[in-house]
Amino acid sequence: MGNTFGQLFRITTFGESHGGGLGVVIDGCPPTIDISEADIQRELDRRRPGQSKITTQRKEEDRCEILSGVFKGKSLGTPISILVRNKDARPDDYVDLAKKFRPSHADFTYEAKYGIRNWQGGGRASARETIGRVAAGAVARKVLGALYPKIDIVAYVAQIAEVTARIAKSKVKVRDVDANIVRCPDAVAAKKMISLIEKTREAGDSLGGVIECVIRNAPAGLGEPVFDKLEADLAKAMLSLPATKGFEIGSGFSATQMRGSEHNDAFEMRGGRVRTSTNYSGGIQGGISNGEEIYFRVAFKPTATIGREQKTVTKSHDETELAARGRHDPCVLPRAVPMVEAMAVLVLCDHALRHRAINRNP
Amino acid sequence: MGNTFGQLFRITTFGESHGGGLGVVIDGCPPTIDISEADIQRELDRRRPGQSKITTQRKEEDRCEILSGVFKGKSLGTPISILVRNKDARPDDYVDLAKKFRPSHADFTYEAKYGIRNWQGGGRASARETIGRVAAGAVARKVLGALYPKIDIVAYVAQIAEVTARIAKSKVKVRDVDANIVRCPDAVAAKKMISLIEKTREAGDSLGGVIECVIRNAPAGLGEPVFDKLEADLAKAMLSLPATKGFEIGSGFSATQMRGSEHNDAFEMRGGRVRTSTNYSGGIQGGISNGEEIYFRVAFKPTATIGREQKTVTKSHDETELAARGRHDPCVLPRAVPMVEAMAVLVLCDHALRHRAINRNP
Amino acid sequence: MGNTFGQLFRITTFGESHGGGLGVVIDGCPPTIDISEADIQRELDRRRPGQSKITTQRKEEDRCEILSGVFKGKSLGTPISILVRNKDARPDDYVDLAKKFRPSHADFTYEAKYGIRNWQGGGRASARETIGRVAAGAVARKVLGALYPKIDIVAYVAQIAEVTARIAKSKVKVRDVDANIVRCPDAVAAKKMISLIEKTREAGDSLGGVIECVIRNAPAGLGEPVFDKLEADLAKAMLSLPATKGFEIGSGFSATQMRGSEHNDAFEMRGGRVRTSTNYSGGIQGGISNGEEIYFRVAFKPTATIGREQKTVTKSHDETELAARGRHDPCVLPRAVPMVEAMAVLVLCDHALRHRAINRNP
Amino acid sequence: MGNTFGQLFRITTFGESHGGGLGVVIDGCPPTIDISEADIQRELDRRRPGQSKITTQRKEEDRCEILSGVFKGKSLGTPISILVRNKDARPDDYVDLAKKFRPSHADFTYEAKYGIRNWQGGGRASARETIGRVAAGAVARKVLGALYPKIDIVAYVAQIAEVTARIAKSKVKVRDVDANIVRCPDAVAAKKMISLIEKTREAGDSLGGVIECVIRNAPAGLGEPVFDKLEADLAKAMLSLPATKGFEIGSGFSATQMRGSEHNDAFEMRGGRVRTSTNYSGGIQGGISNGEEIYFRVAFKPTATIGREQKTVTKSHDETELAARGRHDPCVLPRAVPMVEAMAVLVLCDHALRHRAINRNP
Repeated sequence: MGNTFGQLFRITTFGESHGGGLGVVIDGCPPTIDISEADIQRELDRRRPGQSKITTQRKEEDRCEILSGVFKGKSLGTPISILVRNKDARPDDYVDLAKKFRPSHADFTYEAKYGIRNWQGGGRASARETIGRVAAGAVARKVLGALYPKIDIVAYVAQIAEVTARIAKSKVKVRDVDANIVRCPDAVAAKKMISLIEKTREAGDSLGGVIECVIRNAPAGLGEPVFDKLEADLAKAMLSLPATKGFEIGSGFSATQMRGSEHNDAFEMRGGRVRTSTNYSGGIQGGISNGEEIYFRVAFKPTATIGREQKTVTKSHDETELAARGRHDPCVLPRAVPMVEAMAVLVLCDHALRHRAINRNP
Repeated sequence: MGNTFGQLFRITTFGESHGGGLGVVIDGCPPTIDISEADIQRELDRRRPGQSKITTQRKEEDRCEILSGVFKGKSLGTPISILVRNKDARPDDYVDLAKKFRPSHADFTYEAKYGIRNWQGGGRASARETIGRVAAGAVARKVLGALYPKIDIVAYVAQIAEVTARIAKSKVKVRDVDANIVRCPDAVAAKKMISLIEKTREAGDSLGGVIECVIRNAPAGLGEPVFDKLEADLAKAMLSLPATKGFEIGSGFSATQMRGSEHNDAFEMRGGRVRTSTNYSGGIQGGISNGEEIYFRVAFKPTATIGREQKTVTKSHDETELAARGRHDPCVLPRAVPMVEAMAVLVLCDHALRHRAINRNP
Repeated sequence: MGNTFGQLFRITTFGESHGGGLGVVIDGCPPTIDISEADIQRELDRRRPGQSKITTQRKEEDRCEILSGVFKGKSLGTPISILVRNKDARPDDYVDLAKKFRPSHADFTYEAKYGIRNWQGGGRASARETIGRVAAGAVARKVLGALYPKIDIVAYVAQIAEVTARIAKSKVKVRDVDANIVRCPDAVAAKKMISLIEKTREAGDSLGGVIECVIRNAPAGLGEPVFDKLEADLAKAMLSLPATKGFEIGSGFSATQMRGSEHNDAFEMRGGRVRTSTNYSGGIQGGISNGEEIYFRVAFKPTATIGREQKTVTKSHDETELAARGRHDPCVLPRAVPMVEAMAVLVLCDHALRHRAINRNP
Repeated sequence: MGNTFGQLFRITTFGESHGGGLGVVIDGCPPTIDISEADIQRELDRRRPGQSKITTQRKEEDRCEILSGVFKGKSLGTPISILVRNKDARPDDYVDLAKKFRPSHADFTYEAKYGIRNWQGGGRASARETIGRVAAGAVARKVLGALYPKIDIVAYVAQIAEVTARIAKSKVKVRDVDANIVRCPDAVAAKKMISLIEKTREAGDSLGGVIECVIRNAPAGLGEPVFDKLEADLAKAMLSLPATKGFEIGSGFSATQMRGSEHNDAFEMRGGRVRTSTNYSGGIQGGISNGEEIYFRVAFKPTATIGREQKTVTKSHDETELAARGRHDPCVLPRAVPMVEAMAVLVLCDHALRHRAINRNP
């Protein structure tokens, strides 16, 4: 349980970081959508290890194969399964971990829950699990594009540790994001971030930060009261990503210091449509999109795997020390950008289908 | 769709703020749990309108009736349905709202989604909907107590606007929280908060703030990778509450400015158990509880309903103005404390049952 | 768990035969559908006890109240909850049952599963539980009628014990079914059935039989491969009704003795549409409706409650005897006709919404 | 949607008869269960094409590979994914089918539903889809065996066309079933069945029949009222198998001709346990197992694919004729035996986990 996401556009991911492979089964994809392995590979390449000097140097090509559900380039309406084989596995890097619990990793909790764990590379708790999500997100993006051709979903790094970027969130495009290896569309901040990441890795340490995501041209009406509010499903989606610690929609925590008279988004007529003059709501009111920009922020902790020695205990309850030997990311954010986008796309796509089901004039 | 929460301890709420009544059906409650209307009423009284001078003066007794699922004081294993009748309904207070969209409310989005809405008192988007959640939470608390007698779940107001409390979160008890009408266990801060709320109401304005929740003595092993991580389900639960804008688990957004070497929670042996020396993780690693305190924070925006005149538009797209005539809360936080607790209890209870299902030695 | 049916048009029933009441919450009903208590009451009256001399003489008015989800006669898109209060409860009739297990009832199995049971009138296992289903079915019928104005769903008694009716299933209408108290549209057979039921009751015994259901003018395309085939969901729906022992779609068990060359439904063009020249498939191929008549048969066992003395054991494992004192139906079929219809309508309505979700040209 | 089965032991199958491969993802398998590819292969070999002279001569080895969820021979508690590659694909055999709808197949309905179909070998509607079910069933059997070591689930061919077997259902073992190629444990009947199948194939025709399944030593208490009754879930499971037309639990349709006084299963004490003296109920009362043998029967239609010419229409609505060129089974029952067993095991395993979740003394 717990490996399925979505109600109608429903994905189930599988796979450990070591073993036969990882992937996803997508059930509920509408038929006759154009889908190719190239579409999926493009997104997988954005999350791939070894893509730049500031990510892990683990060499995984992460080549995807569509096993089912697509025929002559079009979705069949049947389950789309996508497989990525594990390649650059070095179980020897992890042999120490069979006995020692890595601090702030899931080694101890998996052992506590299941009484067993695949200790090679983090097993199911490895960020490699997100391959399935990113692959499914690429498919969801095609579906969403077919339903709402103008919709635009862009995530980017807004902050790394104490370096904060300035970004015009209404205008930023994916190409701006991918213009540098840290995926921060503010070139000046990006340079500082890259330098900080390199310096921190050399010091055997790691960094966290904030990813922001903006969704433009979503229709009004997506989201289901009361538990499946759009922001609730986005919050769950984001907090299900590894290393996340917080989520804010619209004004977020800053709303707590505002007065209602400041924070309320007055309605006005603009361009013949009902619009709001401000957008502290973040494009969602009462759990349902209102047609304004949806934007949210996700907090990532510093990577738990660090080069320095740390105190820990063994499976047999002896106190010991541990230093990372595996290759790892000093900062997960550049590779987490496509993960955030994928989860956002999946939430939107699922709600788009849910809305069609009950909408008498879709 | 969207009115059901939980996988095994599964609740479905129903009801609008005006109409026959509101309530909940709980499916999946284990049998032979002691449950009484008094247990439920106690929690409902904590969220009831009119309970103090700083809440809305709407007079609703919110008396609950158990319609099914309990026999001679014990749960039967069958659905427990609980009904609260609407009493102090004044549809006349809302007649203006049939035509005008209240800013930062759900009037416009419900209309956009459904093409119809119950405009009396906010309909389904009213915070009265949380009656069902709080009632179900009271039942979940009994179940959780039967499974884990030492578990302790306490929420409290940690901040109202710019007033921040100092709270020893490892020790705070429900009776400390309920010691004052603002439900902040720091007496000095509470006094300032109350005075600020009164002053703000007089000014026709409203306030937001932060509720913190701590869960002590939860067992290690609750939570399901990968999408149903414990923090992901808590995030969804909290963001599904009206007026929420953000969620943080453990270190939250502050983690983004820390280094891994600071943030990692080293393991150590303490009291014969594997413990962590710090708890930035907030009691959850890899989505599964580790036996430490689980704590999180929820951001609430200032109440959207305010006394002052605001700009808005009508259903027929004319620009107009609007001032609240209904009775309302100048700050929802005191009454939201039992809602946050209820949702936390529901998440824990659901995961406790899910864990039992697969655990060979429960 | 287990009290919810449907994926998108999702109903949750609640209530025991004794206690505050029974009912249903419907989540997923599209908005702006005309719904009234009268629509629902009409169907409830068809399943009501005491409606004729051949049913139980228990006097229950079974008046329904819509508690939520309907505003000024139209569905809101929010949960529709419907409540029927228990009235003619005579717990004294059942006091014997606190200790003795009724043969072929659920007394023993509920006790085995839950360690507790509401022994008054069968508790949750009572056929009174179907009130919620029939009420929800009345709502589903309105939704289905809005989506497919020509669809027609009719169930009727086709056999009672050894008396078999001759019915032109392509033409039979609800008014033909309700033309007599046994709900068999073959007047000659109906007369024999009624007389057999009366005679059997006098003898302290009970009867079973077959209900047939036909669905005309369903569109092609409803049903989801592979597990949620239309016939699979119908089978589950029917076997979830009390006292059912079998289900056949189309040719059913008689298909087992046919050759493929006989049984195959050849395609032909008729009226400008692809049609089949025979319909052994029962309107469903590969789990999806093909536009032909959908028809199926449901086997009901003889009522377990009989007037005669029977051997049984007590809760404390003593062998004893038992004779029914409560008022009961000597044959459930006349009252089960609206239950079969309701479940069929619910399955169709759910699949209609599911189809809309993925259909690019609904 | 529709490709997932089960609530807690939840399987999702994927794959078309032609394409990269078929398989299943199992979510909810408890940890530390012994699982090997050999366990799974054994069951797959029982459903494999080409296994005897009376099945299709299509040569598929159907070798399975476990991609995830098993580590050093034990389940991890994470998703178990199993893949079988398609090998002996001859798309040329099917090229005719791109244009013509095969009678009593799903070609027309898939086209009607999705506007597209993989016409090679039946695509998703092919019985090859059951590979995933049978593989998952093998895993479920290991789980069930760990929870209830004495449980025994056996299916067998009880009837082919007009040839009916005599079988002592309380004693029959899997080895008796597999003693002959038609999987009928009555040797005399088996011989007649085999000869009938061969004769029918030569005549370009096909046969149906009945598979019976018996479950011995299931505990009392499995099954969930009211919609997820054990027999309801079994009915759905069976009717979701290709070519099925009917389902009977216990007395089934024969109950319709019995009187209550005959049909009721009197309780008695036997071996220190509450037992029933007869078992017309088929081991289930009120949807919950009572500890007696669970038995049911499934009707299969004659294979739709036959050698003879048949009338049909093309995609462009021209009337035409068609004769099968692909290799096919003249009677699916011998290969359907492991499918029926797999689905029965999956239902039981799912309900076993569901019961553990709410049972305070599992």
